[in-house]
Amino acid sequence: MMEIAVCGAFVDEQVERLKHGAGDIPVRLVEAEDSCDCAIVFGNPEPEQVASNPSLRWLQLESVGFGEYAGLDWNRDHGQTVVTNLSGFFADPVAESALAGILALYRGIDSLVLLKAEKRWLGDPLRTALRLLRGAHVVLIGYGTINRRLAELLAPFGCAITPITRGSGSDALDMALADADLVVCTAPATPATSGLLDAARLARLPARALLCNFGRGSILDEDSLADALERGRLAGAVIDVTDSEPLPHEHRFWNCPNIILTQHTGGGTMDELDRKIDVFLANLARFRAGTPLEGIVDFSRGY
Amino acid sequence: MMEIAVCGAFVDEQVERLKHGAGDIPVRLVEAEDSCDCAIVFGNPEPEQVASNPSLRWLQLESVGFGEYAGLDWNRDHGQTVVTNLSGFFADPVAESALAGILALYRGIDSLVLLKAEKRWLGDPLRTALRLLRGAHVVLIGYGTINRRLAELLAPFGCAITPITRGSGSDALDMALADADLVVCTAPATPATSGLLDAARLARLPARALLCNFGRGSILDEDSLADALERGRLAGAVIDVTDSEPLPHEHRFWNCPNIILTQHTGGGTMDELDRKIDVFLANLARFRAGTPLEGIVDFSRGY
Repeated sequence: MMEIAVCGAFVDEQVERLKHGAGDIPVRLVEAEDSCDCAIVFGNPEPEQVASNPSLRWLQLESVGFGEYAGLDWNRDHGQTVVTNLSGFFADPVAESALAGILALYRGIDSLVLLKAEKRWLGDPLRTALRLLRGAHVVLIGYGTINRRLAELLAPFGCAITPITRGSGSDALDMALADADLVVCTAPATPATSGLLDAARLARLPARALLCNFGRGSILDEDSLADALERGRLAGAVIDVTDSEPLPHEHRFWNCPNIILTQHTGGGTMDELDRKIDVFLANLARFRAGTPLEGIVDFSRGY
Repeated sequence: MMEIAVCGAFVDEQVERLKHGAGDIPVRLVEAEDSCDCAIVFGNPEPEQVASNPSLRWLQLESVGFGEYAGLDWNRDHGQTVVTNLSGFFADPVAESALAGILALYRGIDSLVLLKAEKRWLGDPLRTALRLLRGAHVVLIGYGTINRRLAELLAPFGCAITPITRGSGSDALDMALADADLVVCTAPATPATSGLLDAARLARLPARALLCNFGRGSILDEDSLADALERGRLAGAVIDVTDSEPLPHEHRFWNCPNIILTQHTGGGTMDELDRKIDVFLANLARFRAGTPLEGIVDFSRGY
């Protein structure tokens, strides 16, 4: 008999919504490390529990990333098991957080927040140090749902936008960086993006540039960024993702000037879990109707 | 012989630009309190010096506000003296600062900046408290160049925008406030706007609302705003202008939660003085050609 395993930090009310939405299919709550034999799994269980589930037909992840499941044998049942992710789910919150961080640095909000904590009025000396986002040259590394949404939000600012995708080639990236006011990276963690923003690439950026990383920590050489910020060779950074999270207490970023650390909150919203349930239930209706699911993962592409 | 008096904090290079741009008309640097008899004055001299200048033909202010000159007898020479201001000059920077403050509150940048100063990782508890600007109901009080620019910047967020102008009437304002996610006031200081956002109006706002004042301090009842923020009856505020500036050390705003104090920096940019010179020189070319000047002040409208 078909069952749904739900693995996630849902509250009672949300579990009730899931059960109601599932109708006659029983819903079982499981921990990530529990083995289970349910045909449908909603959440991100440990990969070994997925591997050892002989009945699995559909895994709905509650993330966009799926790297930890890529090594499993998805052809074991001749492609009958489908995995879906939350592709596009984080476009709005991450694009809004990226723009929030960028505008904060351009308009001095970071300095003003600290001044308020000290009850200190600075006023004019800060005022004459502020910059406009209008007309900036923006390099978007990765052009999936997040950076496409960011490009929409930037449209009224009249920015010149250079999207960099897998097909752009490294010469195009190098050229774009040399003339960038602003770089926003939302690329996924793949072998091709690992160390993409290394010391040499960071050195190409003009001193006026801001660097934002909302992709993965593995893309960026964190020590080189810390060097550039400390030496004033880069105007600022907005960093959502880091190699190690939580950021270790001794990490250089904590002491760097002009860096906003958004602590991997970029994708967050108050109603995040409810919206994830919405996605699952909409896909469940498709599953029952035998129509194609949304967000099917293509493991061969790596993202 | 016609002369130009320049009154402002310009550096040598900027004075040279002014002299070069003035061509054969001599440029004289004056202090705000100096009396002068120049036909053209660029800057904001003391009103009594303007009143006692019998030769004045054109006063180019380096501000948008002109209230301190409104009491002068501008008909003394049968309307032959023209006053121009920087109408529209601050639309881009103020609109960008307003959006920066709004997005900072929605996306937790204020909290994240303070967490960084403490080297403290919070992450998930903050992530699940964040809100989206997308789809918010925005009430714009005053619909001049600044709020019209802000409306442009908000367009891709799909906000429902209710502009409130002098003609809207107080019922329309009251109704709009009761359903607002966000209120942005950029109204000028006039008898009609004095105390416009009083205790009763602030009480109409939903607890989820943010209030932004980039108009004048006289529009807002500051004590009532402090009450609302301290008691959690309002989600947050972005305050650029206050009754008293610099904000006195004992002012309640310094201790209020969820308030970003932008310290009257909203209009600032690195190149602010250079851009003011651009405006003056462009108007000077019109003055010499006998064509209409841009930004002519209508004292009967009060802004």
